[in-house]
Amino acid sequence: MLWIFAHPEPRSLSGALRDEGLRTLREQGANVRESDLYAMKWNPVVNAEDFGAAAESDRLIVGATSKKAFNDDELSDDILAEQEKLAWADAVIFQFPLWWYGMPAILKGWFDRVFVKGFAYGVQRPDGRTLRYGEGTLAGKRAMVLLTAGAPERTIGPRGVNGEINDLLFPLQHGTLWYAGMSVLPPLTICGADRVSPERYDAAAEALRGRLRSLSTSDPIPFRRQNGGDYDEDLVLRDDLAPGRSGIGVHTS
Amino acid sequence: MLWIFAHPEPRSLSGALRDEGLRTLREQGANVRESDLYAMKWNPVVNAEDFGAAAESDRLIVGATSKKAFNDDELSDDILAEQEKLAWADAVIFQFPLWWYGMPAILKGWFDRVFVKGFAYGVQRPDGRTLRYGEGTLAGKRAMVLLTAGAPERTIGPRGVNGEINDLLFPLQHGTLWYAGMSVLPPLTICGADRVSPERYDAAAEALRGRLRSLSTSDPIPFRRQNGGDYDEDLVLRDDLAPGRSGIGVHTS
Repeated sequence: MLWIFAHPEPRSLSGALRDEGLRTLREQGANVRESDLYAMKWNPVVNAEDFGAAAESDRLIVGATSKKAFNDDELSDDILAEQEKLAWADAVIFQFPLWWYGMPAILKGWFDRVFVKGFAYGVQRPDGRTLRYGEGTLAGKRAMVLLTAGAPERTIGPRGVNGEINDLLFPLQHGTLWYAGMSVLPPLTICGADRVSPERYDAAAEALRGRLRSLSTSDPIPFRRQNGGDYDEDLVLRDDLAPGRSGIGVHTS
Repeated sequence: MLWIFAHPEPRSLSGALRDEGLRTLREQGANVRESDLYAMKWNPVVNAEDFGAAAESDRLIVGATSKKAFNDDELSDDILAEQEKLAWADAVIFQFPLWWYGMPAILKGWFDRVFVKGFAYGVQRPDGRTLRYGEGTLAGKRAMVLLTAGAPERTIGPRGVNGEINDLLFPLQHGTLWYAGMSVLPPLTICGADRVSPERYDAAAEALRGRLRSLSTSDPIPFRRQNGGDYDEDLVLRDDLAPGRSGIGVHTS
């Protein structure tokens, strides 16, 4: 079990929930490792230096160069360390405060740098079809997003002004985690994060403990598999599925 | 006019389009400034050091501390320089390669650090209602996203496996730019970015020139205004608008 934490202040609501979560998992006997990105002073910026000798010959083409560096064992040590943790983990918690309806840059850049071509994407089947969305190098692992948000709950509900939280998280939950093959559990969102009373904190901690206890048994979000027959050869959803509709909702079954 | 560029390699398709765009604008007589985030070695990580003396007294609460630093003129110089450019500009182009269906971390962290409370959000009307989504400190300015994507065009269309591009960009276009008051023009997306022939490059450059020529006159995305009567007191869309529907699409009129 791997816990990725991306908040600058350990003495925060997020920090308290992280401590609570790690304690719960260890009490269950889980083997838990952590990447506390701020504490690690994680560098989130993709650069030629990430790729060692693979980047020295020509202009930087990020996808191709990262794949060459992955294959030639030229990736920088900080990237390799995170890939080793991911390969080891059976489940990963991604915890962050929602900033501008997405991840803090330090976490976005963890994906930009760690999820390189060959490691997390760009792998093909013998028939040439790319493994993606439900299949891939990280298939079999579970992921869950744990986030704090300043917004009141109704404003990130189905018709709330900010957009529904699963729609806001689609690039992460579907476009990144599911893309790489991971099974994504529904997120746990703690709203009104700057105004949490002791009673609401207790409820949030209890919700978190419950989610962690059922992590290996609860149902993931039923995203459609790219290669499961729902999408045509151009990777467009078949006409007879969710007929006449479009939008993020059509990609769950 | 301000051009924000977030690609690590100037000798790339993105770099060529940036040069093309800047040349077009200057030929039109526009006064153009640029933030080339990689060239500037922009730091995308929110930290206590951003807030000077405003952060020294207590644990870091990002929203409140950033507002105090903004009010007390304690923000770090690199943040102030970007805020000055934004305040000056009548329109802003945000150009980036789509990485994991979102912005590269260096650009996400430009928003995390520059769009602080007081400058880009958290401003209230005399009646206590917060200015947000169509109103706010950046109202009156135009914004356009220009992006390159590896994916083929149909896969980011309405029923494509990756999700429709405007849905993927909702956290940026709606949750950040429109949130702060900016009018957001439809994005220009150049697909299949690693496989662009000279003919396709010419078409992309022509499309870009056309979009830049009509930047001040074309219609923005018709996102709903938070305080325009479409949302109730809890900031939930009124029952009689897009009745029975939910999802990102309900937030445009």
